[in-house]
Amino acid sequence: MSLLVVGSVAIDTVEAPGGRAEDVVGGAALYFSLAASFFTPVRMVGVVGADFPRSVLADLARRGVDLAGLEERPGRTFRWSGRYHEDVNVRDTLHLDLGVFGDFRPTLPAGYRDSRYVFLANIDPVLQASVLDQLHAPGLIGCDTMNHWIAESRPALERLLGRVGMLVINDEEARLLSGERNIVRAAARILSMGPHSVLIKRGEYGIIQFAGQSVFAVPAFPLEEVTDPTGAGDCFAGGVMGELARSGDTSPAGLRRAIVYGSVMGSFVVEDFGPRRLLQLTREAIDRRYRQFVSLTDLDGG
Amino acid sequence: MSLLVVGSVAIDTVEAPGGRAEDVVGGAALYFSLAASFFTPVRMVGVVGADFPRSVLADLARRGVDLAGLEERPGRTFRWSGRYHEDVNVRDTLHLDLGVFGDFRPTLPAGYRDSRYVFLANIDPVLQASVLDQLHAPGLIGCDTMNHWIAESRPALERLLGRVGMLVINDEEARLLSGERNIVRAAARILSMGPHSVLIKRGEYGIIQFAGQSVFAVPAFPLEEVTDPTGAGDCFAGGVMGELARSGDTSPAGLRRAIVYGSVMGSFVVEDFGPRRLLQLTREAIDRRYRQFVSLTDLDGG
Repeated sequence: MSLLVVGSVAIDTVEAPGGRAEDVVGGAALYFSLAASFFTPVRMVGVVGADFPRSVLADLARRGVDLAGLEERPGRTFRWSGRYHEDVNVRDTLHLDLGVFGDFRPTLPAGYRDSRYVFLANIDPVLQASVLDQLHAPGLIGCDTMNHWIAESRPALERLLGRVGMLVINDEEARLLSGERNIVRAAARILSMGPHSVLIKRGEYGIIQFAGQSVFAVPAFPLEEVTDPTGAGDCFAGGVMGELARSGDTSPAGLRRAIVYGSVMGSFVVEDFGPRRLLQLTREAIDRRYRQFVSLTDLDGG
Repeated sequence: MSLLVVGSVAIDTVEAPGGRAEDVVGGAALYFSLAASFFTPVRMVGVVGADFPRSVLADLARRGVDLAGLEERPGRTFRWSGRYHEDVNVRDTLHLDLGVFGDFRPTLPAGYRDSRYVFLANIDPVLQASVLDQLHAPGLIGCDTMNHWIAESRPALERLLGRVGMLVINDEEARLLSGERNIVRAAARILSMGPHSVLIKRGEYGIIQFAGQSVFAVPAFPLEEVTDPTGAGDCFAGGVMGELARSGDTSPAGLRRAIVYGSVMGSFVVEDFGPRRLLQLTREAIDRRYRQFVSLTDLDGG
């Protein structure tokens, strides 16, 4: 089943544990699309400037990402530069230039309006809602957000959450959104806002998911080196939504499997700068690491 | 199989998320013994002053803890007072009075020298080694330590680690001991010092265990309230060693089951101040929570 993602496409410069990398492509929609493309066809809606490398568009197309919804406009692509701390769960933004992303108004090609699986990556919640307004009959709607919108656009965000099935955020965002420090109470508060499940990203500690009375935890994959954490959360979301769109199984067990696939994709992307690792990845490597994830918590393993 | 623990017995005053509690009994050996007593008979070696409540000794004896190795000396019991941060993984020591614990020299009763399962709770590594010297043929030796000994007594600690099978420490201690920030590299470095397994406690994120090439992770139990985190790590160790001594199964799978039982015991003790929750606990409640732990990471669950 086709999967729609709407979000940023960017050119990043990062100072990460593995060193410095200049002008690597990134952005939530790009990472999400590449990760999801290993599971299902992806429709990507975003905007790039004239400076965006065309070879990357060819890479995306080769991986089955439909680019009919990617606007190309005169001007510069959204640029972000940041520095990760020794604790890679923390990063500072050094420079931000919105470029053509500054007046991005997502418009779905007519052929995208029937999308059943939809992911609203982190953008203004008013724009996220405008995407939903353009859809005929969305099935599962996933959504990300960030501290800025929680603090500055809470009414719009709360209206949006009433229309969202699955919220994917990090623990700091979950605490800010809910006003609760304890993660169990934070999740209960968020579920009362609308989503039927909330997936909380905890960096090097993995994922915890709350859905109704059910709680599911996946540890992060124990990596000896994290070269560049950029895109881990977006690749996680791409793996989750990609596997759900592929299987069509949104039962509790189907969701748990998808969360492990998401964790697999997040664990790969950090092994190299930008999306490099994803571009060399095979389905076999994904399934091999899926089995390693299972053995991480397998009581009969070792 | 009988399990020996050597460590502190204390009277604590804590300011914790659940409020303030004065003069509650504690100490690593006490928490460890109570937790382990649900699995196997325990021999406890420590020292208390004349001020230690006799009713607690009766509670311990009733739970099958052998107190022949608990010295009672004139003077005051070790007293600790501390304050937990909003983030309960962090605490400040407000006051420390070693009392009779200041010149504790552990001496095993003759009947304890045949102990096969041994846990060296956090004390001076020179004293920990002196305990091993008194044992005839220890089987599995578990060990805890803390930042103070890592920084101030590294040679003695490194000699000790060559004699230890299982090290149980927190992530900050693992980083300090190994000089590695990455937890996978930290664990590899620690395993090269002697222990065949290292169990790293990550507070609200649970446990990660490294043994040879095997990695096992258990999330923390998602609790809505943590009343008093004191003793969580010691009860974890007590559950692990208690279950191993009971089953005699130190295979990788046996170790994984024991780690879940340890996590269960750690999750109970924080529900009330001091050891109160442990004193009301039943074996049925332990097994019920064990099944909840399994479902936390069960791919077919939900």
